[in-house]
Amino acid sequence: MPVALENLNAMNAAEFAAALGDIYEYAPWVAEQVAARRPFATLAALHDAMQAVVRGAGADRQLALVRAHPDLAGKAARAGTLTAESTAEQTSAGLERLSEDEYRTFHRLNGDYRRQFGVPFIVCVRRHTKGSILRQFAQRLRNDAAAERDAALSEIFRIAALRLDQRVSAPDRLPVHGHLSTHVLDTQGGTPAAGIAVDLVEIATPSNIRIVAGALTNRDGRTDQPLISGRPIPIGTYELRFAVGAYFAERGVPPADPAFLDLVPMRFSVAEPEGRYHVPLLVSPWSYTTYRGS
Amino acid sequence: MPVALENLNAMNAAEFAAALGDIYEYAPWVAEQVAARRPFATLAALHDAMQAVVRGAGADRQLALVRAHPDLAGKAARAGTLTAESTAEQTSAGLERLSEDEYRTFHRLNGDYRRQFGVPFIVCVRRHTKGSILRQFAQRLRNDAAAERDAALSEIFRIAALRLDQRVSAPDRLPVHGHLSTHVLDTQGGTPAAGIAVDLVEIATPSNIRIVAGALTNRDGRTDQPLISGRPIPIGTYELRFAVGAYFAERGVPPADPAFLDLVPMRFSVAEPEGRYHVPLLVSPWSYTTYRGS
Amino acid sequence: MPVALENLNAMNAAEFAAALGDIYEYAPWVAEQVAARRPFATLAALHDAMQAVVRGAGADRQLALVRAHPDLAGKAARAGTLTAESTAEQTSAGLERLSEDEYRTFHRLNGDYRRQFGVPFIVCVRRHTKGSILRQFAQRLRNDAAAERDAALSEIFRIAALRLDQRVSAPDRLPVHGHLSTHVLDTQGGTPAAGIAVDLVEIATPSNIRIVAGALTNRDGRTDQPLISGRPIPIGTYELRFAVGAYFAERGVPPADPAFLDLVPMRFSVAEPEGRYHVPLLVSPWSYTTYRGS
Amino acid sequence: MPVALENLNAMNAAEFAAALGDIYEYAPWVAEQVAARRPFATLAALHDAMQAVVRGAGADRQLALVRAHPDLAGKAARAGTLTAESTAEQTSAGLERLSEDEYRTFHRLNGDYRRQFGVPFIVCVRRHTKGSILRQFAQRLRNDAAAERDAALSEIFRIAALRLDQRVSAPDRLPVHGHLSTHVLDTQGGTPAAGIAVDLVEIATPSNIRIVAGALTNRDGRTDQPLISGRPIPIGTYELRFAVGAYFAERGVPPADPAFLDLVPMRFSVAEPEGRYHVPLLVSPWSYTTYRGS
Repeated sequence: MPVALENLNAMNAAEFAAALGDIYEYAPWVAEQVAARRPFATLAALHDAMQAVVRGAGADRQLALVRAHPDLAGKAARAGTLTAESTAEQTSAGLERLSEDEYRTFHRLNGDYRRQFGVPFIVCVRRHTKGSILRQFAQRLRNDAAAERDAALSEIFRIAALRLDQRVSAPDRLPVHGHLSTHVLDTQGGTPAAGIAVDLVEIATPSNIRIVAGALTNRDGRTDQPLISGRPIPIGTYELRFAVGAYFAERGVPPADPAFLDLVPMRFSVAEPEGRYHVPLLVSPWSYTTYRGS
Repeated sequence: MPVALENLNAMNAAEFAAALGDIYEYAPWVAEQVAARRPFATLAALHDAMQAVVRGAGADRQLALVRAHPDLAGKAARAGTLTAESTAEQTSAGLERLSEDEYRTFHRLNGDYRRQFGVPFIVCVRRHTKGSILRQFAQRLRNDAAAERDAALSEIFRIAALRLDQRVSAPDRLPVHGHLSTHVLDTQGGTPAAGIAVDLVEIATPSNIRIVAGALTNRDGRTDQPLISGRPIPIGTYELRFAVGAYFAERGVPPADPAFLDLVPMRFSVAEPEGRYHVPLLVSPWSYTTYRGS
Repeated sequence: MPVALENLNAMNAAEFAAALGDIYEYAPWVAEQVAARRPFATLAALHDAMQAVVRGAGADRQLALVRAHPDLAGKAARAGTLTAESTAEQTSAGLERLSEDEYRTFHRLNGDYRRQFGVPFIVCVRRHTKGSILRQFAQRLRNDAAAERDAALSEIFRIAALRLDQRVSAPDRLPVHGHLSTHVLDTQGGTPAAGIAVDLVEIATPSNIRIVAGALTNRDGRTDQPLISGRPIPIGTYELRFAVGAYFAERGVPPADPAFLDLVPMRFSVAEPEGRYHVPLLVSPWSYTTYRGS
Repeated sequence: MPVALENLNAMNAAEFAAALGDIYEYAPWVAEQVAARRPFATLAALHDAMQAVVRGAGADRQLALVRAHPDLAGKAARAGTLTAESTAEQTSAGLERLSEDEYRTFHRLNGDYRRQFGVPFIVCVRRHTKGSILRQFAQRLRNDAAAERDAALSEIFRIAALRLDQRVSAPDRLPVHGHLSTHVLDTQGGTPAAGIAVDLVEIATPSNIRIVAGALTNRDGRTDQPLISGRPIPIGTYELRFAVGAYFAERGVPPADPAFLDLVPMRFSVAEPEGRYHVPLLVSPWSYTTYRGS
């Protein structure tokens, strides 16, 4: 249950610090220091204030904050000694379900990073899939120490923003949500295509895929809810799969057996987890058009 | 090495019968009987004459012809005692590489069919994939005896036509060839898309796929050769996979990282093995159109 | 200024009859008879009640109602003696701006119709263009007397519904409004196409066209307002004209001089004046897709 | 009737010079000087040799050659005293059918050009429409004298190439031909669209259009001949007009009345007269895609 911003504003300082003490990992002092700056009219103002506390803290304290973060898919995760927040986050990217090979890769990269920068590797995993985390390792291992310090802080702020956005209900939301939706038009009938089953599949590798969401199109050819909303869309590769064969068969389209188009796959990648991805399909029994819409 | 039709016309009767004795399975009498009707001006005329011999043979002889065919993926295949022609044909549909489960399914269906019709199940396997053969079993088990006798003869004629077309060189070809090709247009540049890697994949099941053909597009956005030609396209489901990400990356398209479109899959099914399937792709970095063309 | 439904409900009977006396042409008795059935919770209920009065009136009264309507583009229109409502309606279809040829055509068809059915030809002109009115004449002259009586009443009800919808403000609207909108996507950039000038042109004949609406696309690639809404879309042929050349030129698209695509015309016809016509354009400098969307 | 290259090679020098004396306007010396370089294996070699003669002539002779050209739409054209070749060329761009306004514009621009450069304005009119000639005036009036001398010579060589290509039959053709074709696919039926009437219209201004070519699509959805081939495509704006309404009506497409799509216009501009413009249409009753193909 989220706590209302107005309630946070009304708490005494200790209650407030307790409520938001884990927004920054093992760093309750961040919440403690912003307590006096209340009331906050918006969630954005609260987030900015907490960010300002971290930015204003000395280098030692920032370093301690970075060091307090656990390894990704590391020993603490295996031992079950992560904070509740970290556990949920690492689970979101499937880091608790690694194969032995993947585990070894993460272990090696964690080690490389620690040797190079002396701290754990931090990334906002809710914005990522396993594959994009591995690419992040590769990119950030090429940073110099100063750039990497900035990168780690940026990721810490992203983690905090997502935690705050889930923890607190407020008139505003933080800009941490992506949107992934579709729309199917029947260009043979000139109407929305209703009743088409659509699956959204995440494609880690050609042989490692999982269904992320599924829905039926409604009378307007859309799904009642976006396929993803209210959270970041993890950077990665996806496939929308549209079951158009059954749709046209029901409409008595002259049969090729099997039908030329049955399951239509649209494969695309997400680069902006907070972006709007609207991916329509204009489809006849023999042709289709698909694109990034708006 | 094919034999020229004019040479067949010039042979003595025994040589001729030897050359074409195995066009009909274990039925050299078909070739023997057409020897006297030479010369044949075209391959079509030769094929028609052999067909006429079979149609004109008595019911007993036709039945013997049907019975002479081996089971699909049956004991003879496992034992390696098929005719050379049958071995090559069954291999074309992957019947020599069945899993134990698949083998049991074929074994059961062969048995069902024999019990119902008293003869082996015959299908022109070069026109099929494993999946479409299984659908053929299901459909034909619903036939009555007369309809099924016609169906078996039709398949025997198809087998013979393909064998003749491979065996004999002539001014004409028999209409046993399909055509599968593609064409990639770059709608961002307004030009053919050259240098795009295209794979053609046969999709037996989502987890059982194999690459059938691969090519690079040339300066006109086409592959130098059709992806399939000179043979039937087995009835089944395919995917064309276009590597458009690399193409646009080389052209300095402003980068999304990862690119919105990288590998574009176009999944479609072939219902007419002798048909013309031209499946173009019109693609920009953010959209594409694909269709059955001509 | 529309009058509020609640005010109509509160008036005395004479005021009410005066306020709605001209909803049916020269037939104040319709409003008079529904006054006693007030209050009406919705505009639809008021419209239904007035329709019921007409349907329940005797044949003589219905005939008189039909006869009270003026000819289309007839002498009364030329003499300026139409009711205010009729004048505005005939103007909407351009009937006051007929060429001499067109005037003669209407005159002749009015005469044909009167000779055949003994009454003036009635059509709800706000749902039509000149061309579709002429097609209506042709179709309805083929009706028998009974079918045509029904057709005339249907048109009278449509006229009344539009008059009511304009005259009265209420919580509901009558279903007399069409919707015509567009949306432009830049498939080269993968974004909405902002700042594209769009004209909507009515095409009476190739040489007789007029601009009905014009707008610029906004940041979402849409126009701020639908091109047509809040009224029927007259049955007829239209062209959307998208000035895409300037858009791509500003984005530094490598120049063909002149550009391959400059003004993109999309010609389509409207058959349902109360329908939703959403006609998007997906466009690159070298290609486009357009369709009836939703 | 073209003369064969081999015949030109076999003529005596005087005959040869007579046959090609008017390839360069009022400059028989060009043909005279290449007579001795015969035989020419290809038309390209002959054209190159004649070009080399002009390039190698002194400045005075080149200037005389330029001066020998008539004004576009000038007094000589009105008086009918142009060479036969010039008359045909100016007619191809419609310069003999100018309105008074257009005539005055050309007159003024001819004067501007002569005042600035001291010679007549030369352009290869077969590659142009009236509109693109006017843009040429504007562009070339901004040249300095040296650039403009080169431009005039380039145009003279283009004129000569077109004259040679028409006059002489040879194993090769000069690269002076454009190609404009179309292809209509029915995405509802998954087949080529046969029997669709296609007009090609040149659009000088919205109110000044003329039909350049017309054809019916054949069984493959193409026109039997390209709409333009064997000559340059004049730089300008065109519309392909596809009569798709009749096509779908014949196929019993559920009727909207009038049909959503009837005549589909595709407006585009040609920038390269020697280019290949293949402009297909993929069309259903409710949608279409069109693009520059290959």
